[in-house]
Amino acid sequence: MSGSTFGKIFKITTWGESHGDSVGVVIDGCPAGLELNAQDIQKELNKRKPNNSKYSTKRNEQDKPIILSGIFDGTTIGTPICVMVKNNNAISKDYSNIKDVYRPSHADFTYDKKYEVRDYRGGGRASGRETIGRVIAGAVAKKILSHMNIDFITYTKSIGNIDVGENIDFTEISKNSLKMPNLEKATLAEKNIQKAMSNGDSLGGTIRCIVKGAKAGIGEPVFDKLDANIAKAVMSIPSVKAVEIGNGKQSSLLRGSENNDGYYYENETIKKYSNNGGGIYGGISDGSDIVVTATIKPTPSISKTQNTINKQNENVEIQIKGRHDSTIVPRAIIVVESMIAITLVDLIMEGMGSRIEELYK
Amino acid sequence: MSGSTFGKIFKITTWGESHGDSVGVVIDGCPAGLELNAQDIQKELNKRKPNNSKYSTKRNEQDKPIILSGIFDGTTIGTPICVMVKNNNAISKDYSNIKDVYRPSHADFTYDKKYEVRDYRGGGRASGRETIGRVIAGAVAKKILSHMNIDFITYTKSIGNIDVGENIDFTEISKNSLKMPNLEKATLAEKNIQKAMSNGDSLGGTIRCIVKGAKAGIGEPVFDKLDANIAKAVMSIPSVKAVEIGNGKQSSLLRGSENNDGYYYENETIKKYSNNGGGIYGGISDGSDIVVTATIKPTPSISKTQNTINKQNENVEIQIKGRHDSTIVPRAIIVVESMIAITLVDLIMEGMGSRIEELYK
Amino acid sequence: MSGSTFGKIFKITTWGESHGDSVGVVIDGCPAGLELNAQDIQKELNKRKPNNSKYSTKRNEQDKPIILSGIFDGTTIGTPICVMVKNNNAISKDYSNIKDVYRPSHADFTYDKKYEVRDYRGGGRASGRETIGRVIAGAVAKKILSHMNIDFITYTKSIGNIDVGENIDFTEISKNSLKMPNLEKATLAEKNIQKAMSNGDSLGGTIRCIVKGAKAGIGEPVFDKLDANIAKAVMSIPSVKAVEIGNGKQSSLLRGSENNDGYYYENETIKKYSNNGGGIYGGISDGSDIVVTATIKPTPSISKTQNTINKQNENVEIQIKGRHDSTIVPRAIIVVESMIAITLVDLIMEGMGSRIEELYK
Amino acid sequence: MSGSTFGKIFKITTWGESHGDSVGVVIDGCPAGLELNAQDIQKELNKRKPNNSKYSTKRNEQDKPIILSGIFDGTTIGTPICVMVKNNNAISKDYSNIKDVYRPSHADFTYDKKYEVRDYRGGGRASGRETIGRVIAGAVAKKILSHMNIDFITYTKSIGNIDVGENIDFTEISKNSLKMPNLEKATLAEKNIQKAMSNGDSLGGTIRCIVKGAKAGIGEPVFDKLDANIAKAVMSIPSVKAVEIGNGKQSSLLRGSENNDGYYYENETIKKYSNNGGGIYGGISDGSDIVVTATIKPTPSISKTQNTINKQNENVEIQIKGRHDSTIVPRAIIVVESMIAITLVDLIMEGMGSRIEELYK
Repeated sequence: MSGSTFGKIFKITTWGESHGDSVGVVIDGCPAGLELNAQDIQKELNKRKPNNSKYSTKRNEQDKPIILSGIFDGTTIGTPICVMVKNNNAISKDYSNIKDVYRPSHADFTYDKKYEVRDYRGGGRASGRETIGRVIAGAVAKKILSHMNIDFITYTKSIGNIDVGENIDFTEISKNSLKMPNLEKATLAEKNIQKAMSNGDSLGGTIRCIVKGAKAGIGEPVFDKLDANIAKAVMSIPSVKAVEIGNGKQSSLLRGSENNDGYYYENETIKKYSNNGGGIYGGISDGSDIVVTATIKPTPSISKTQNTINKQNENVEIQIKGRHDSTIVPRAIIVVESMIAITLVDLIMEGMGSRIEELYK
Repeated sequence: MSGSTFGKIFKITTWGESHGDSVGVVIDGCPAGLELNAQDIQKELNKRKPNNSKYSTKRNEQDKPIILSGIFDGTTIGTPICVMVKNNNAISKDYSNIKDVYRPSHADFTYDKKYEVRDYRGGGRASGRETIGRVIAGAVAKKILSHMNIDFITYTKSIGNIDVGENIDFTEISKNSLKMPNLEKATLAEKNIQKAMSNGDSLGGTIRCIVKGAKAGIGEPVFDKLDANIAKAVMSIPSVKAVEIGNGKQSSLLRGSENNDGYYYENETIKKYSNNGGGIYGGISDGSDIVVTATIKPTPSISKTQNTINKQNENVEIQIKGRHDSTIVPRAIIVVESMIAITLVDLIMEGMGSRIEELYK
Repeated sequence: MSGSTFGKIFKITTWGESHGDSVGVVIDGCPAGLELNAQDIQKELNKRKPNNSKYSTKRNEQDKPIILSGIFDGTTIGTPICVMVKNNNAISKDYSNIKDVYRPSHADFTYDKKYEVRDYRGGGRASGRETIGRVIAGAVAKKILSHMNIDFITYTKSIGNIDVGENIDFTEISKNSLKMPNLEKATLAEKNIQKAMSNGDSLGGTIRCIVKGAKAGIGEPVFDKLDANIAKAVMSIPSVKAVEIGNGKQSSLLRGSENNDGYYYENETIKKYSNNGGGIYGGISDGSDIVVTATIKPTPSISKTQNTINKQNENVEIQIKGRHDSTIVPRAIIVVESMIAITLVDLIMEGMGSRIEELYK
Repeated sequence: MSGSTFGKIFKITTWGESHGDSVGVVIDGCPAGLELNAQDIQKELNKRKPNNSKYSTKRNEQDKPIILSGIFDGTTIGTPICVMVKNNNAISKDYSNIKDVYRPSHADFTYDKKYEVRDYRGGGRASGRETIGRVIAGAVAKKILSHMNIDFITYTKSIGNIDVGENIDFTEISKNSLKMPNLEKATLAEKNIQKAMSNGDSLGGTIRCIVKGAKAGIGEPVFDKLDANIAKAVMSIPSVKAVEIGNGKQSSLLRGSENNDGYYYENETIKKYSNNGGGIYGGISDGSDIVVTATIKPTPSISKTQNTINKQNENVEIQIKGRHDSTIVPRAIIVVESMIAITLVDLIMEGMGSRIEELYK
């Protein structure tokens, strides 16, 4: 498992298991001189807290960031920023009943096959708690980007079969617990979630992230393309099963003449007739909105009885107890946004010397 | 553009522009002792040749691989394998009319914004010719995997709105020029392509890759997950706009109880009731089929007149001349398969020391 | 400063400044199943403690390792191991007099030029305290290697102009505070150090590390050669100014016929007439002792008055107060050994798939 | 052997064995807009040609660089630059007598232990011919650096026991075949080489590289320090056995007060009383000369009879025939210089975003 590091220049390394002492991240390569404090990070961590949504686990997670290094006098100093968040699972439960059981569509089975040992008290590194480190790093990345006038609009595009469709009002996002930009659809989606909950079941959905203000020229051909790196960044988030750029899957249904994004020049500005490509061509941003959509599968932890096997290859039934997220989509929004922000900062920094005159300044 | 390298242990570096002297790849980290010759590579390169499909460019591409290093006495010796393919574009055309024009949904604009200079004679590194290096490396990767009994079934899942659906016959793939596993759908799709061609237009589609025989335990949490690395690998292919694992987008429409893949034990074998997760859980393979779907946008090169701008910010019309692929989907199949094969070999090699006993042998 | 990570598979990331909250390391890629506890780490950290040597700073450093992740039930589980050590510098000193002064041969000036901001309370990341993370990671690496019967003999080869010479008794190393394998030379060296101390001055020296038991085949040509990676690993340690392999500089004084290490076969064993190459040929270990020598410059922190400038470009005098190491050589031994151990584990893991049959097992 | 790549942003990958079709390099991450042609490269390759020195192999090596990609209209375009040089060893020799014999202090034995197969016709990747790729990349790096007014003075510091000492005249370097900055010492050294030659023996020596004009701030703490990366870069060159920064080994013989490099300010310029640190403190350049010394062992290929074993573990005698370099020191100068230049460009590019204001420009 040497894969805990992401990025080349703005490089993050997350650590910690869900039921260990703590989880955290080391952010290496952050430029010196950025004002940063714990509150900047707390603000973002709060967005992934369950209490933001009534459909989420009631686990009491304070998730208070403790900055261990990298900040002096309120400013980054170019050294690695290590931030930790304590796990609050003091109660010593009896895990004997779940210890050897492979929860369906969880990583219990695959971790056991790969490593043979496993912290059976929870999802370990496959747990959603690992994403705390990503959100912390995302907070730093977004602060850097905000000074470059790069902003994010990220929202729940769909829950189950309820999609916000074309009738979108971004001001609505912060007003409903599902973070959908359409109140009517949010209300419908809430009902569906309640129904799923009452059946001990869960729902998935899709998240859309729109990056506004990114300049043209971000992305390193041919393997570190902006879209390729975003695809990796987002697909590495637990429960993500699809990543799309621009109109994504929809593009396969269009003709070239419909899908192509022609440029035009008007009022001394370069514009496009459409943005089906989602702002990325040949792996490089073109200055228009960068559009990414992630599909989140329904939470695999459900209280409904399921069939599975245990470590001894015995067929067993399992009921996953406790209060679980009946959908993690609203909580995953900040994680998707964070990973895209981290990817952008890394590629912006990597591309600083794309032209020789940048070196000779 | 320091992004021309992919992989950590089985590491490939592609080089070459579409209208330069040649294109090629350096494959570093290939184990010693693998029998390999030019024919192994030629066989795979042939699969991306346009003459495999009547809907493709008639550019006369021999694409003969020249092995420059890494092979001795018909065997890999652990040293980097450099393979080149010459470009055959001897005729010195007049490029003055396309030199400064930004073709819609091509990378002309973004490369110019990033680098300011550009080989305007073609797509440069954004051209499909860059994928020759990937297919060469894929040939090596697949030969390694074949000895591990890992095989691939890769096919055109859809062209435009014609999807093969559930009625699938894999033996059909090699029998039609679109490489669809359903003759009826292939025939329908061909008609649609002909219609698009006659309109100077193009079509996109989707490609599905099924990896059979991969053992459990491939993938390095948490950022180098198998699905994350595949997402990057596949999204880095020109024209890919979406990557899905397992049922992908479809998962968002299912309930947890429907989407979860329960295990059961039967006839001394671990089986699953379903494989919606596409064989990957927590970023690690579980030993079942690995299922990946890529969306290919319609070829942006169309002969239909389009509006765009040039380098001088003037609004201009463009007609892209020459014989172009009216769909690249069938040719892209081997590229998708190659990138997944490369990803697998790299992660298999990276994971060789996951358990301490592997080191102590 | 994205350079805080070392290694490719066994990958360590150190974090923390000398006067921040804490220092630590994330060890990613450690195989699962290794028994490991805090005591294993404490034992190694004790070796770099000042109280091992009467010539070292009396700063009260407990250096107690706190394991935050990666261990469960006394065993590594394949997940990143984060270990921290608290800094004990509670007393809020007045730093106004040193804040802007550039100590000669320290990194104050260069950090200021690079980052413009700096934690002026100490050496920050350039401080010897950063090496705590390396020693922690080295403890893990050495535990892995010990199971492969790879051991280390590391000692002070010289202090100032007192070199142990040819008359070496390894059992002596642990018996004197300078860790020299020759009591007589250790006594002479101690006298020289005392003289330097009384003059407010410091001494340097050399450290030799002999790795015993490493098999043939470690090292990845051509840039990740065993000697190249060791050179980087060791040169990255504060105060190291030279790295030598085998007879090192001495080799330039010999003729080829004198320097060449011929093999011979005796008693069913491959032996060599000499080991001038230090066990590495073409960047790969040959199974004999790996011999590395590091030169440590005299500690730049001296109480003698020195001339330098401050941030305002004013010529100033400086006396570095407090109790400083009059030589850091004995304390640096464990750091050199740790970095070599980390390099070995990383390259051993990277090389696991050098031959195709290793993959097909 | 996944170690054929060096650098993070300015990233080079060398390929090719000494007796294969060709050797070469892919330079990825070179900024766009650099004027570059084959002559720029040829000029540097000529410096490593044997005919520069009467003490070198008479092998007829044209070493003509063929640029395969990355240059358009005489300018780099940001894409990977692949350059190849053909091997001219057309004559099919009979290798049966050397096929299985392990030449002392060569890499024959270690490659066989690691890979089991080997191109026994020569040194393969361990051959000096691999350095052609380094020199090509060095030519590009040096051209970049020359525009930043960074220059190199690199010379033979010693041959055997003849060291140029303190009496140095840089204008002398280009005037003698040994490239020593002291005619008298060069004459003495030549005599010693002739003596060694007549005995079928060889000599080593040391090379010093002085980098002039590098600004303060180059180097990424704590592992990618300028000195650490240089140490790796230089130690990875065949036959290098020691790397020193500044006064290197000598520093261990000085007291802190003698070795420390105090700053002073005079005539509106920051100066130093000495440069024992070789221009690097805490792994970061301080704007003064960067001083690196490499020790080259005596060429292991000697015609004198030597004892060794073969693959069958039989004790055998070997006489290495052909005309070999009796010292490679003068030819290695350009290789050392190239590797340092490559390291500098890579770290300069990596450090472009060290301060936040650099990103916000």
